[in-house]
Amino acid sequence: MEGVGVDHLAHERKKAEFDVEEMKVVWAGSRHDYELSDRIARLVASDPAFRKDNRATLSRKELFKNTLRKAAHAWKRIAELRLSEEEAKELRFYVDEPAFTDLHWGMFIPAIKGQGTDEQQQKWLPLAYKMQIIGCYAQTELGHGSNVQGLETTATFDPQTDEFVIHSPTLTSSKWWPGGLGKVSTHAVVYARLIVNGKDHGVNGFIVQLRSLDDHMPLPGITVGDIGMKFGSGAYNTMDNGVLRFDNVRIPRDQMLMRVLQVTREGKCVQSDVPRQLIYGTMVYVRQTIVEDASYALSKAVCIATRYSAVRRQFGSQAGGSETQVIDYKTQQSRLFPLLASAYAFRFVGEWLTLLYEDVTKRLAANDFSTLPEAHACTAGLKSLTTSITADGIEECRKLCGGHGYLHASGLPELFAVYIPACTYEGDNVVLLLQVARFLMKTVAQLPSGKKPVGTTAYLGRVQYLLECKSDVQNADDWLKPAVVLEAFEARAARMCVARAQALSKFSNPEEGFAELSADLAEASVAHCQLIVVSKFIEKVQQDIPGNGVKKQLEILCYIYALHILHKHLGDFLSTACITPKQASLANDQLRSLYSKVRPNAIALVDSFNYTDHFLGSILGRYDGNVYPKLYEEAWKDPLNDSVVPDGYHEYIRPILKQQLRNSRL
Amino acid sequence: MEGVGVDHLAHERKKAEFDVEEMKVVWAGSRHDYELSDRIARLVASDPAFRKDNRATLSRKELFKNTLRKAAHAWKRIAELRLSEEEAKELRFYVDEPAFTDLHWGMFIPAIKGQGTDEQQQKWLPLAYKMQIIGCYAQTELGHGSNVQGLETTATFDPQTDEFVIHSPTLTSSKWWPGGLGKVSTHAVVYARLIVNGKDHGVNGFIVQLRSLDDHMPLPGITVGDIGMKFGSGAYNTMDNGVLRFDNVRIPRDQMLMRVLQVTREGKCVQSDVPRQLIYGTMVYVRQTIVEDASYALSKAVCIATRYSAVRRQFGSQAGGSETQVIDYKTQQSRLFPLLASAYAFRFVGEWLTLLYEDVTKRLAANDFSTLPEAHACTAGLKSLTTSITADGIEECRKLCGGHGYLHASGLPELFAVYIPACTYEGDNVVLLLQVARFLMKTVAQLPSGKKPVGTTAYLGRVQYLLECKSDVQNADDWLKPAVVLEAFEARAARMCVARAQALSKFSNPEEGFAELSADLAEASVAHCQLIVVSKFIEKVQQDIPGNGVKKQLEILCYIYALHILHKHLGDFLSTACITPKQASLANDQLRSLYSKVRPNAIALVDSFNYTDHFLGSILGRYDGNVYPKLYEEAWKDPLNDSVVPDGYHEYIRPILKQQLRNSRL
Repeated sequence: MEGVGVDHLAHERKKAEFDVEEMKVVWAGSRHDYELSDRIARLVASDPAFRKDNRATLSRKELFKNTLRKAAHAWKRIAELRLSEEEAKELRFYVDEPAFTDLHWGMFIPAIKGQGTDEQQQKWLPLAYKMQIIGCYAQTELGHGSNVQGLETTATFDPQTDEFVIHSPTLTSSKWWPGGLGKVSTHAVVYARLIVNGKDHGVNGFIVQLRSLDDHMPLPGITVGDIGMKFGSGAYNTMDNGVLRFDNVRIPRDQMLMRVLQVTREGKCVQSDVPRQLIYGTMVYVRQTIVEDASYALSKAVCIATRYSAVRRQFGSQAGGSETQVIDYKTQQSRLFPLLASAYAFRFVGEWLTLLYEDVTKRLAANDFSTLPEAHACTAGLKSLTTSITADGIEECRKLCGGHGYLHASGLPELFAVYIPACTYEGDNVVLLLQVARFLMKTVAQLPSGKKPVGTTAYLGRVQYLLECKSDVQNADDWLKPAVVLEAFEARAARMCVARAQALSKFSNPEEGFAELSADLAEASVAHCQLIVVSKFIEKVQQDIPGNGVKKQLEILCYIYALHILHKHLGDFLSTACITPKQASLANDQLRSLYSKVRPNAIALVDSFNYTDHFLGSILGRYDGNVYPKLYEEAWKDPLNDSVVPDGYHEYIRPILKQQLRNSRL
Repeated sequence: MEGVGVDHLAHERKKAEFDVEEMKVVWAGSRHDYELSDRIARLVASDPAFRKDNRATLSRKELFKNTLRKAAHAWKRIAELRLSEEEAKELRFYVDEPAFTDLHWGMFIPAIKGQGTDEQQQKWLPLAYKMQIIGCYAQTELGHGSNVQGLETTATFDPQTDEFVIHSPTLTSSKWWPGGLGKVSTHAVVYARLIVNGKDHGVNGFIVQLRSLDDHMPLPGITVGDIGMKFGSGAYNTMDNGVLRFDNVRIPRDQMLMRVLQVTREGKCVQSDVPRQLIYGTMVYVRQTIVEDASYALSKAVCIATRYSAVRRQFGSQAGGSETQVIDYKTQQSRLFPLLASAYAFRFVGEWLTLLYEDVTKRLAANDFSTLPEAHACTAGLKSLTTSITADGIEECRKLCGGHGYLHASGLPELFAVYIPACTYEGDNVVLLLQVARFLMKTVAQLPSGKKPVGTTAYLGRVQYLLECKSDVQNADDWLKPAVVLEAFEARAARMCVARAQALSKFSNPEEGFAELSADLAEASVAHCQLIVVSKFIEKVQQDIPGNGVKKQLEILCYIYALHILHKHLGDFLSTACITPKQASLANDQLRSLYSKVRPNAIALVDSFNYTDHFLGSILGRYDGNVYPKLYEEAWKDPLNDSVVPDGYHEYIRPILKQQLRNSRL
């Protein structure tokens, strides 16, 4: 893709046994998506205004200002090139730097769309679309994260003036974390307890102006600032995650988002006929995008680690020849290739989630809520599973790059630092697994009544069979049968669910039982979610997939994904007697053989992500494999190398060497 | 310990069922060690020159200069207070910031001591002890890490001038990574291929002066600099990890470290009668300190996460009361308490390793090398195991703190960034596991010949019994019997070793077999190493331990350590039929019950580490639990909050809001 200079990985690319160009289309989702992302990625990569290799050495203030500059430049290019909304979104994605615009477009506008009345949308959305106002999403508080119902900020209706009084009654009620809040946003959707006539009506959203549109100064009663440095250098330090306090700030009544609940001029609370379940639709949407992002983040890390594993050589030189490429070591393969397979697996389950979201949206429009709990549980679980694996996977890829992975120039430290919040935001991953467990336990409890489980829980309808079935694997190749793999995963998940349900039934107080067994319940949820990913991957490879050898490669990755989980969670499979130790050992043999099949295709499989060197942001992951000269060049750019003798030598080093420290003031 | 203000965790401290002061002594290792570390930790904490809470906002150059200042101040205080070598080392430990002094004292001096002749030691050590020269350890190269024998730098003997010519023949031969090299060191022990009369005699150490002692300028032929930013803000960016190239640099012959191998004036290579095995003694020493460091790093993270888990409340408020402390959730306990137990386990296995090292040293002095391979394998494996778990454990602790763990002020991002290199340096963790596996396979292969395995492999001498034994656990309390736990771990490790040995024997080429099965072999090594940790923990709690309730708490932690591994690696135990699924389930029940026993003691168990707030460096982990007001205060110190309207507003935000972007230059 990069085009100039020697391609040090050309010999690897020649080994590929499939059509890389066709695989790029599969990865992108469609030819349209491929062409769009390819065009926009090149546009960003070729624009020097978007360079990002200097982020680590900037001070916080410089870094932040630099991000403001990029955001403005992006907005300008979007206008100049008359990009569509789809193209603009893609451009922000490839700029690849957390900024206030993420929240403006990704949370502020959707909140108004989702929770505002038609009139509110007509008033606020045009302003937001033109960025005449910039908004953020102010939910989380200093003392309140996961438990939204515990938020303390109040919005008290004053019937005298027809206003709401927004107030922060305690220190812990300070809004804390919202991105874009600290320094940029002029407005926020603020979540606060609605108090009308002294009665608490729970948490609702309010549009609150924070800063003057004339001079950007905070409005009276508003205290707003940045919450300080976060993990890593660069990463989310480009973002003004903010703190916000209200001292009896008044807003007009019509700035409460009233699509679901309305407060009238007289101070009456009126539920609209819009179903509350709508918010679950939004959650399904948001979590689907998080699963998609997981596949992008993991694939970036895997791309870097795979390419560098082909460049790097260690040990094993025979008779003075080159050392062995580390990608040829089975220990390297057994850590790297399952992550490669996971990146593809998450990509496809994310793709499937967009279909699920479409289905849910259609049903909601028709007032059909029947599939919503299942869809909600499914997306919650997949968000948890994919983000956890991705966060760990990025760090594993860093380790797979040896010492150089620790260099900022490897791109992996910043990728890790910028990714890991995904494990916490939009639902802490463990809290989400417990939500899934609740749904699973409810589903199991309702089985005797004959209620048919739907969607991703449909297999529980065959629970009797799944409790009794025996895997008929007799040799390693039996593990390459989709039905065999699927049944093992279904049996494991079903048996774990049923065992947990039985354990729960021994508690007289179900809530106490749930609390006591929660760690075990979370494991059942993981088993269920892994089954979903495996089954969607299998569905994918059972489709028609054009391109020479493409389908074959995906099948190999699919089995690697499934069998490495089987190996990693072997205790689950054996303790539930879904398979025998002998069958487990055969699966392991098969896994090793699959690694050998991936090996010649590994570079081509990461090339298929079609990432520019700009987007990857890694010297180790360079397309051309020209790693060492570039690492060497890059080192000299560090500000510490501005002078050969470092600043501080005369004050702090020389006095030590000359034994003159006693007299010096430090 | 901190003394002033309200103690928000006082109610937690009252719950403790053991004598915290006595536990502090156990943790420290002895009363002497406790008093020493307590005194020096307070000394550092109370000296404003050592503050470290401002590290994240400093630019690279400021950060580095700040570290130079601290190092000089520390050296000055050491002189002023006439601290002993032991005290000085402790002081550097509590300053808690990577600096060139780590390498000078920890690698440069020991290398000269270990590899220099008596004359060389007499010449160089006094200079180094007074820091009239500052040294580093230049081994790793840009293209060569784990494989020391692959280093490319050459040291060619020139008999004409009686000198060695040190040269970097390729780009990849550039020295790369050595700490203290980039900007500070005047000297280095450089590892290079010794070439005499055109013959390559392998890698040897050479003392090379890098910079002028007059003006600190690099000497002719020397190119030296910093390799650039590394993971995180702060962390190892305080260190000048360096790059170094030689252009035919000449050094006198007597600067080759000649304790083992000598080059004579005539250019003859003479092996001394000092056994080469000596270097293994050094490796045992270095890795023992790494295991010790693992327990410190993990215990810091656990201390932060435990205290904040007692402060933080989420969900579960009943009738308007407070929400539940998150430490009361079983999901939190099941993630946090095994790490707490691991911190103690690593502390004790580290303590045992000091005894092992003493024993090895004594034997080496008596030319007894019989236990060396076992000791070497044991320390390699424990280094790998403890650093891997600690790295992951720190990140897990960060997640256990919810969103706020992502703030730099939590201390966890920097702790992670500064810790993770331990997984790579002094032996990549996977490479080390394979070394252990090689030793284990050799041990198993020699069993039929009647050769008795020694030390930590002694259990393999009972392999016949261990292959056949059946666990007689019948109820959950049976899992509290040391012999039962130990036998399960011994059986698992032995059966995995034997199974791997059998699998290997099917390959006609043993090296090919080892390569093919390497991932499985690494798993057997992990099982062996976990057994070592479990057995040393059990030995510890079987000793007399004074202090009310102290022993009881350690027993609980010991069983948690063992049973959580049993749960996590259940596949191993079940596939080898060491235990039955029913027994596994009983172990899990016991584990939950043990968590409840730890719960009231959790805060006291982390107080027992006796860490000052300075050393912890975490607002979330503050001794007094006064988290939220301090987080709020800290936020306002970020440079971004210097002005209410951010720098960049006029250029980049206002033009967007006012729709004037088209005309502006960005």
